[in-house]
Amino acid sequence: MIRPVLLCAASLLLASPVAAQEQAEPPTPGSVVAASHPAEWRQIAPENLMVMDLAPDAQGQPRRVIIQLISPPFSQPWVENIRRLARAHWWDGKSIYRVVDNWVVQWGGGDPELDMDPGPLPQGVTAPRASYDSSQRSQAIQDALRKQESAVDDLLTRMRGERMIGSLRQAYGSDPYAGRTGFVEGWPFAASDTEMLAWPVHCYASVGVARDLAPDTGTGSELYAVIGHAPRQLDRNIAVVGRVIDGIEHLSVLPRGTAEAGVYATRQEDTPILSVRLAEEMADPPAYEYLSTVSATFARYVEVKANRHDAFYEQPAGGIDICNVNVPIRAVKPNE
Amino acid sequence: MIRPVLLCAASLLLASPVAAQEQAEPPTPGSVVAASHPAEWRQIAPENLMVMDLAPDAQGQPRRVIIQLISPPFSQPWVENIRRLARAHWWDGKSIYRVVDNWVVQWGGGDPELDMDPGPLPQGVTAPRASYDSSQRSQAIQDALRKQESAVDDLLTRMRGERMIGSLRQAYGSDPYAGRTGFVEGWPFAASDTEMLAWPVHCYASVGVARDLAPDTGTGSELYAVIGHAPRQLDRNIAVVGRVIDGIEHLSVLPRGTAEAGVYATRQEDTPILSVRLAEEMADPPAYEYLSTVSATFARYVEVKANRHDAFYEQPAGGIDICNVNVPIRAVKPNE
Repeated sequence: MIRPVLLCAASLLLASPVAAQEQAEPPTPGSVVAASHPAEWRQIAPENLMVMDLAPDAQGQPRRVIIQLISPPFSQPWVENIRRLARAHWWDGKSIYRVVDNWVVQWGGGDPELDMDPGPLPQGVTAPRASYDSSQRSQAIQDALRKQESAVDDLLTRMRGERMIGSLRQAYGSDPYAGRTGFVEGWPFAASDTEMLAWPVHCYASVGVARDLAPDTGTGSELYAVIGHAPRQLDRNIAVVGRVIDGIEHLSVLPRGTAEAGVYATRQEDTPILSVRLAEEMADPPAYEYLSTVSATFARYVEVKANRHDAFYEQPAGGIDICNVNVPIRAVKPNE
Repeated sequence: MIRPVLLCAASLLLASPVAAQEQAEPPTPGSVVAASHPAEWRQIAPENLMVMDLAPDAQGQPRRVIIQLISPPFSQPWVENIRRLARAHWWDGKSIYRVVDNWVVQWGGGDPELDMDPGPLPQGVTAPRASYDSSQRSQAIQDALRKQESAVDDLLTRMRGERMIGSLRQAYGSDPYAGRTGFVEGWPFAASDTEMLAWPVHCYASVGVARDLAPDTGTGSELYAVIGHAPRQLDRNIAVVGRVIDGIEHLSVLPRGTAEAGVYATRQEDTPILSVRLAEEMADPPAYEYLSTVSATFARYVEVKANRHDAFYEQPAGGIDICNVNVPIRAVKPNE
């Protein structure tokens, strides 16, 4: 008889608190997070939480997508535009009009050529003349990334000797796209080894600002979320303004568009947006927190993810790429 | 007025043959492939093509998923099981019963505990005692991967000097998970730098064999396809047996499961499988070909993908990871 033949998805699930008997088992990413201390979690500021409610699905179920906006110094001119657009309720009644498999879901006002008249943008919302990367705080970020590499090395030296250090260091120290990668204040970043520059990276569920050809940089009124393998070639070419932290599945399951560039062929195929609100404007706002990326638990979480030796895994990878880490984020009761 | 604010998806689209006037534009991955020579394409053998027809969708549209099975020496005991299962029409009437966002879609006979009695497996289909990697042909594969690195270096030295070589070499020579990566006979592989071993990698759309805990290795009767960021930690822990080369969107848009581990809570939520057939058994089989991964066009395609400088891109990445390359594959008329 065949036993439940389930490919283990423990890496995606935050485990419920582990029972005492399980403590003897090799740790999983979920068990490490479950054993974290409350003080290791950081609240996401309400001004950085944006709530997009889509029209209910075919079964009448509500569809809520929660986006965390990125913190300074990155992409702030676009983030300020996005806050203005949300406060003006600009996206209410607009739609998701483009979905490309293993690429992006895109929404906003669209374009008159697509039979979508977005109407005028709120006062002051224009495409910024600004950079997608930043030298501001770059020294601090580079220092933080170096410190992570060094902390990981220390941890591994204590735990397992030299053999795995080389490969796990790559998760923090080198990838095919940048000289240096790692986490700062809960966000995945890359940085140059040769210039004093750092930038947020495109991972699954990252949110960015759609734009036309340069010198256009986009206003923030048209946004996309990544629904496939990390399109890192977009890094430094588009403003990364946030990430979907809850409800990404309401975007990733949408039918793929069949017209040019994955736009829906007719507006009837669009998914209507009921409203987009900043949490600070809501009577009953959601609340989230992330696991501090300088916490001991986060360092352990990355180490365990990179070296799975729990029951399902026979061959630990010995490394992990920046977009496979997925910083733990959880919903909390607003007054918790 | 806002121009069509479309995030460029050219990297995903095989361009139609470029007009003469476009030849002066910087190349895109699509334009490079469009300019390929017919002799650079290789037919996918009919015994390696498997066609899964799902029940029509809610709009009555047919859903066909085409899977290419991997070639020797990798995972052949499972591939042979899969051919036996397909020839026995074993999957007909079975279902897709598990979908996890940014992870996998899983199908097959399921388990009695899930109210699914798969019935007996065809004669001879048992979980193989075999490895997920292989030392067979490892020397040849390692040599091929080294040759690719060297060819890419030569190309870049001629074209652009030293600066980008280091980072693009990483696409072929190093990643966080393996000592060496590259393409052999159309497939993405990784190999060890310290042992004489090579293995197929998990990318978006890869197909693998679900299994229980070791020593179980799975029979091949339960399969999964990746629908998210490459889960490279599964490499060498599960048998990679193929990849979806057409119709992945019929899997990636399926509703995510809400019961344990992303299994659907009820069998009514499953997507029925009408039939699974090897192309060799079909009266009107589809036919596909891939761009030879030792062709000049493929080398150029990777180089251009790693260094986009067409209109949309301001900042070429200077590198690419193995799972972002996506070997070009196209449908052809069977008698072409």
